[in-house]
Order: sequence, then structure tokens, then C-alpha cells
Amino acid sequence: MNGLLDQLAAIVGANNVLNQGDLSAWELDWRKRSRGKALAVVRPGSTAEVAAVVQACAAAGTPLVPQGGNTGLVVGGIPDPSGTQVVLSLQRMARVRELDAANLAITVEAGCVLQTVQEKAREAGLLFPLSLAAEGSCSIGGNLATNAGGTQVLRYGNARELCLGLEVVTARGEVLEGLSGLRKDNTGYDLRDLFIGSEGTLGIITAATLKLFPQPAATLTAWAAVPSMEAAVQLLSLARRRLGAGLTGFEVMGQFALSLVARHFPQLRVPFVEESPYGVLLENADHESEAHARAGFEALLEAALEEGCATDAVVAENIAQARTLWHVRESIPLAQAEEGLNIKHDISVPISRIPDFCAETDALLAREIAGVRLVNFGHLGDGNLHYNVQAPQGGDAAAFLREQEHRVNTLVYEQVRRFGGSISAEHGIGSLKAGTLPQYKSPVALGLMRAVKQALDPQGILNPARVLESPR
Amino acid sequence: MNGLLDQLAAIVGANNVLNQGDLSAWELDWRKRSRGKALAVVRPGSTAEVAAVVQACAAAGTPLVPQGGNTGLVVGGIPDPSGTQVVLSLQRMARVRELDAANLAITVEAGCVLQTVQEKAREAGLLFPLSLAAEGSCSIGGNLATNAGGTQVLRYGNARELCLGLEVVTARGEVLEGLSGLRKDNTGYDLRDLFIGSEGTLGIITAATLKLFPQPAATLTAWAAVPSMEAAVQLLSLARRRLGAGLTGFEVMGQFALSLVARHFPQLRVPFVEESPYGVLLENADHESEAHARAGFEALLEAALEEGCATDAVVAENIAQARTLWHVRESIPLAQAEEGLNIKHDISVPISRIPDFCAETDALLAREIAGVRLVNFGHLGDGNLHYNVQAPQGGDAAAFLREQEHRVNTLVYEQVRRFGGSISAEHGIGSLKAGTLPQYKSPVALGLMRAVKQALDPQGILNPARVLESPR
Repeated sequence: MNGLLDQLAAIVGANNVLNQGDLSAWELDWRKRSRGKALAVVRPGSTAEVAAVVQACAAAGTPLVPQGGNTGLVVGGIPDPSGTQVVLSLQRMARVRELDAANLAITVEAGCVLQTVQEKAREAGLLFPLSLAAEGSCSIGGNLATNAGGTQVLRYGNARELCLGLEVVTARGEVLEGLSGLRKDNTGYDLRDLFIGSEGTLGIITAATLKLFPQPAATLTAWAAVPSMEAAVQLLSLARRRLGAGLTGFEVMGQFALSLVARHFPQLRVPFVEESPYGVLLENADHESEAHARAGFEALLEAALEEGCATDAVVAENIAQARTLWHVRESIPLAQAEEGLNIKHDISVPISRIPDFCAETDALLAREIAGVRLVNFGHLGDGNLHYNVQAPQGGDAAAFLREQEHRVNTLVYEQVRRFGGSISAEHGIGSLKAGTLPQYKSPVALGLMRAVKQALDPQGILNPARVLESPR
Repeated sequence: MNGLLDQLAAIVGANNVLNQGDLSAWELDWRKRSRGKALAVVRPGSTAEVAAVVQACAAAGTPLVPQGGNTGLVVGGIPDPSGTQVVLSLQRMARVRELDAANLAITVEAGCVLQTVQEKAREAGLLFPLSLAAEGSCSIGGNLATNAGGTQVLRYGNARELCLGLEVVTARGEVLEGLSGLRKDNTGYDLRDLFIGSEGTLGIITAATLKLFPQPAATLTAWAAVPSMEAAVQLLSLARRRLGAGLTGFEVMGQFALSLVARHFPQLRVPFVEESPYGVLLENADHESEAHARAGFEALLEAALEEGCATDAVVAENIAQARTLWHVRESIPLAQAEEGLNIKHDISVPISRIPDFCAETDALLAREIAGVRLVNFGHLGDGNLHYNVQAPQGGDAAAFLREQEHRVNTLVYEQVRRFGGSISAEHGIGSLKAGTLPQYKSPVALGLMRAVKQALDPQGILNPARVLESPR
């Protein structure tokens, strides 16, 4: 085995093969629930080095775990505890290779931090719209490998829809040179989208060409008090009709979720939290002017009040107010953590079915789990809810999770199945849900996925047991 | 072999197994350049029947050629001349299964004609934006199998980006139930996009759930006289910045292409054809009002005149005028045909490189091919040009094509390669370009494509020799 480490050191330099000291940054998962043990952490500095590392590992039969910013939520990017897997960190590959303003495209290496991509775009007067909580530390390679979502999906799509082309190192250590500034290319199978969302199990993304957009002239934020989930869906339809593509964000938050923010962050003013069952945060990005954006927003909210799908509303007067409203939304996970342990879900159902899903599932859980408290919030515009369950007030939260987590998951996922939904809308499968997936994915789909895995990684050395627990 | 036909008749009914009389509708390609010979044309009426047909053919080792409206441009949907391939026509599967307005989604069977999908959406006050010349007879299954493009890609993407989920019959005759009204679903590999654009070589699309959009309040059309291709790209940037997502169409047309329309369809008034090297057709879809759309359009064109990227411009006053402008654009292929035989290309390069590509390639062809006449037009907003070559005036056009077509293709494709482009932007590969593809696609990409084909269709019975000429 030392032979392999020597080979890896010869490829990337001894300084970039780590196997001593505290490797927590690569071995411990983001939510600090799982810790693996790496044979070594290898940090290549170029695509050629990644290819050589993969070739060496393939020859030795040693599995590789590709890793970006290590901010994933489904334990997909850390090694297992066996000490036999090499972590291949893309962090050193962080160059912006090219920004082509006339083609509205930027080419970056996988280790580029998402925020850096956003900033480079902004400096050129353009917009890279992918935006999510971990943007200060997640890397674009990981965003693509997990097909990240976030708050702008309603308008701009997931990471997949923001990608024009990829450079990928295959399981054999070949380089697929698929970087492309093309918006149309029908010359064969869609390999790009096969690698996107495959969580490093089919190939290692080393660089990507991404879509950019003109910066909007103004971006405004509003908050509406909404009487019910039905009303929230009605408001969404109204907003899409009236703002068109200007509607870039539509987040729904249940009263209990907001009350946790009010309780644990008293310095934050949570609009309408006392009187309204739901809050909705809307964002309107306008290519014309701030005045035009404001007029459109106010007309929309007036119509919503008239139609009864909102009972009150406020448009942020300036950027500071807008940030505060977003800050309330983004503080929900932290407030949840302050309140204590909880069970997280990342589900989607068709938007039209969300009101019935929530009504039925809320009632089911209340019936089945004494004292249950639902922290329901999410990207309603995408049909994506973080339908979380807080341990009952005052009880032993750790015991609750130990005893009830599996049962709660099963109750929620069975409801998701009944409503034609997904048990992982944006976070992926990783190792956390790999055991659960076969219960909710059709045998035909699983069979096709296994055939693809077998075809592209016959040795099974790329991120084994993630997504698919067993390759057969 | 009669055993198989009897089995097929038992599955779909004897009336729906055609193997006598004139089968031109299924055996002759859209551009009437190739004629195949089918063992039989089989017309199943349901997904279960499609699955049973595939199972019977797989057991007999008989290849299947899936076919929609038979409007493809790359000879991908007709049988080869051997008389051994079964044409599987999806035409009878033409139901709209569901329209879910609140979820902005419609589920249709593969044989649904594109125009029917557009009409069903419109009846519900919604928009299905895919739009192309053959929309009155092409089917949505074929649109997805070929990842169709068309005139609205700039804003809404190709067919791929308009699809939420697919129902597919696999090469083993299993049914992948992937219809989905979900906008986010990260539970495994992206099988949907693998089938989209695979031209029936990996599976048979039997139904799809498609994205719908709010109908814009007004759609306006303008025509600008443009002094050069550089100016056209500059106008595109300006229009994207000022109209944002309102810009739904941006078509460029060279003066010679337009002069052919003026010559062969004298009843059509072609704007600025005498004085301008290029014409640009712009479409602005506004969610607010016609007045707002017009004001935005006029302000844009004024700015373009000031910046010098347009020398003259006109906004259509009413729907009839707008239709006339689009009619001029859409008449170019017909005017070309009236002028005589020509060599067609469907290429893309990054938008920023289009001016240099055209300048260099125009000069190269003028140098290499005496009397060459370039009919250059296309979807500039997508970097997609139909960079066609008309036989020299007055000569023997048939002889020109016989002697020069291969050479012209090679000259153009080598230029496309130099500029990082694609030799098939929107039409696909079929059998027409399957022999050419290996010269312009990397061996790594071809190797991965073959591995995927082998994994999903190990018998090689689905549309053999299309896309990939040989599966190994």
C-alpha cells in the first residue's frame, strides 16, 4: 500500500498527500454526524494530476472519494471508516479559466468556491445565479456533482440547468474534454447531465463552463402574511403570472418555524409572526429599474390582498431591509438547532399537491407522534419543502430521535410516495439515504442506474456505496 | 419471421401491423433523400403494447426503429433498406393525459403532435414554448428523442429543458415510470436526460411531463437592419441586458438569404433587404402589457441605432405584421429550395466567436469553391447557424453537390472544430451524420457513449447504426 502512497506523492508532491495529523476537515461530515478514516487525502493541482491519481488508484484497486468544500448534507463526500479509501480533494484546483461576457459564460475549475464564481461574474457586470447557504465554502464541483438547488431555482433552475459543459476524469483516468460554450449541441448522448448529480460515482468533475446572465437593474424583496398553504400556492400562481421571469424567489415558512426564529434571535424582527399561519418571502428581479420593480411588486401584493391569498404584506424599502428579511428565512435552521435536536427532510411534491400533502401529513404526524412540532419551510416555487420535525417540547430530544427518527422518516416518505414526490429534492443520496433509496425508487430505474454505474465504473472504485449501496 | 408478425398482430391488432401497400409515409425520410424498407410498421396504442412489442422483437432479435411524426432531418427515424427492421410508430399514442395548471405541467403521450400540446396549453391560458417549422406534424416524442431546438431556445431552452419527466420502454421491454411533476428530484442518475436526445437508441419514449409557463400579456416582433455580424452580436448583448427574459427570439439572416426570399416570393416585403448586410428578427414577450412591451422595444432599438449596432429598425404594429416578419424568416429554406440544390449545415459555435467564424469561413469557401453562395441564417441567440451553401449560379447544381458536398462539409466542419463548435446543433446525428461523428467527437466521449449504449441496449436492437455507427 505504501507503494501507492509513494506513487501519489510522485504525482501531486509529498506535501499534497496527507495521512497524518488531524484530517477532520476531510474526514468529518458537514453536520458532524459521521466521521470516516482516509487512507490518505490527495490534493492534485491540475486535471492531468487528477487523471494520474485515478490511474494509480485504479491500478491498485483503491477506491476514491472525490471531495469539494465538504459541505454536503448526505454524507456523500467523506471516506468510510475502513481507512482504505483515498479522499481526492479538488480544493487546489480553483482557477477561473475564462470569462466570456459576449457568450455569457464562465469556465472554472471544480475547486472554485461558489461565492468566488458569483463575485467574478458580478465584477463583469453579470450574474451567476446559483445561491445557497454554504456558498462561502462549497465548491462548484460539488455543486454540480450534487446538482445543487438553493433559492433561485424557480427562475434559473438547478446547477444542472446552469451548466454548459464539463471536463471530467473518468474511472479509467481518461479526461473527457467536454467544456463547451455551446447552448445547443446534439452530437450524441447527454454525458454532461449524467455526471451532474451522480455524486462522484461515475466520474470526477474537474472543471465546468457555466451560464451567466445579465445583472438585473434592481432586485426587491417582499414579505407576505398568508392564511394557508392553499393561499401560498395561489399567491405563487399570481406572482408568476404578474412578474413573469422577474419572480426569482418564493419561500414559504410555517408559523412555528418563524416563531423559533423570533424566540432564539430576538434581535430579528419577524414580520407578522403573531398573526399569520404562514409567511412568504418573494423576490422580484427587474431588468428595467427599481421604480418599475417596486410598482410591479406593489400591484401584485395589492391584487393578492384583494384575492385574499395574502392578509398583509411589506416590500423592503432598501437593501438592508431586504437582507434582514432573507436573514429571517436563513435563520430557521439555526433557530431549529438552538431549539434542540430535530429530524430533517428535503422533499418535493408537485406544487399543486403541496396543500393536501401538508394537511394530511401534518394530521398524520400529530396523530402518530405525541407532541410533534413541525418546522415546515422551503422553496415553494420548486415544490421543495424542508419538512422537519422538532422533538416534543421539554422531553429528551436525543431519546426521541433514537426512538422515532426511523418511524418519522417512514411516515413522511410514505406520504411523499403517495403524492408522487421525491425523498431527496436537492440534497442528494450520498451514503445517508443509499439504504433507503431502493424502497422509493422503481426497480426499473435502479436497474438502469446499476447498468450505467457498471458501464462507466466497472471496477467500482469511484465513491463506492454512495447513491447505489450495491452495484448489482 | 411470420411468427413474429403474428405475435405483433396479436399485441396491437392485425390492422396495426402494416407490411403491404405503400408505406412511404413511414419509409421515406422527410427531405425525401432516403428510402428504407420495413419488415413491418407496427402501431401500438398503449405503453403496455409498446412494451410487449419490444419484448417480442427482443426475443426474435429483430431491430426496432421508433418513429414519431417522421419529420427528422438526419434520417434517424426510417428503417434501413434491408427489410429486416420493424418501424414502431408512436402516432396512435396521442392522448393528453393530464394538465396541472397550478403545477404548470402537462403530461402527454409521445405521439401527440407538438401543435396540439401548444393548443392545449393555450386553452388553459398557459404557454408551451417549444416551436419549430414542423410543429404541425412532428410529435413530442420525436422532439424529445432528438432534443429539438427551434425559435424560443434563447429564453426557454431546448426540448430537454422543457421536460420534467419521461415514461420510457427500455430495450428489454420494461416500463420506466419516470413521469414526474417535480422540479427538483436528486434521487439518483439523470436517466431522463440520457433518453432525451438519444434518438431512440437507448429506449422508447412513450409519454412525457412537460413544463408550462404563464402566457405573456403581449408578444411583439421587430426587425433590425444590421451592418455586420459583430453588430448583430452587440445587438444581442444589448437586447438581453435591456429586455432580460423578455427576449424570446433573436434570428439573424444574411443579405443573400433574404434576397432569395425577395426573389422567389415577391409578394413578401423583405425589410431593408437592399441596403443591409444582415437582418435581425427580435421577439419580445412581456408579462405586463402591450404598451410596456412596445416602450421597451422602442427604447432598445433607439439605443441600438445610437450605438450603431443597427442602422434601421421597425416594430410590427399588429399581429398580422408580426406574422409577416416571421414568415420572411421561415421562408428562407423554401426560397433556397426554389433557387436550387444546396448543402445544409446545422452548426453552433460560442456566440462570441460567431463573427470571426463567419468572416474566416466565408473567405475560406470563397477561396476554395469558385462561385460559392452562402445562405447564412439562424438562431444567433443560441449560437446556432444554418450555414448553408447554394450551388453556384447558372451551373449544374446536381453536379456541384455530387462533386463538392463532401469537400464543403469538411471545410465547414474543420472550421467548426477550430472554433470549439458542434457539427449538429439541433438536428441530431441519425444515420446521416453517424459516419462523420467520430471525426469530430473525442474518442473518450465516443467510448463513454458506446459503454452507455452497451449497458442499456446490449442486444443492439434499438435504432441500430443511428448516432453510433458501430456499438464497439
